[in-house]
Amino acid sequence: MKIRVFITLKAGVLDPQGKAVLQALSAMGFDQLRDVRQGKVIELDLDESDPEKAAAAAREMCERLLANTVIEDYTLDIQQ
Amino acid sequence: MKIRVFITLKAGVLDPQGKAVLQALSAMGFDQLRDVRQGKVIELDLDESDPEKAAAAAREMCERLLANTVIEDYTLDIQQ
Repeated sequence: MKIRVFITLKAGVLDPQGKAVLQALSAMGFDQLRDVRQGKVIELDLDESDPEKAAAAAREMCERLLANTVIEDYTLDIQQ
Repeated sequence: MKIRVFITLKAGVLDPQGKAVLQALSAMGFDQLRDVRQGKVIELDLDESDPEKAAAAAREMCERLLANTVIEDYTLDIQQ
């Protein structure tokens, strides 16, 4: 079973990487941009057929290693 | 309109960051993992109400700046 984990900075947390991308795109002439934020996506391939158990394991991985829950939010997308 | 851009390494391209996460999680006792791959997610907030125009602009941003299309694939997720 594959699970996609999206890790994004919480609203209000400064995102210098996103700001740099915004400035670069604006300088290239993309003037319709209001904001850009950058995050991570981690694709987990789990040897587990039960979606609930796989999601529970992925959530534990996020809490213990993948996400810094002080400043980051994570969401799971269970693929198959 | 918000568009999420997912940028992932193409299949077959070595992903040392993903391998490091896989090893760390395995060492923590998560033994059900088969593979981990890491990518980027970029959230674009566009001042554009036409989904087709917004997607076309996002695709051009990917081709010109956001993705290295030699080794990376990108997919768009149009949110609202």
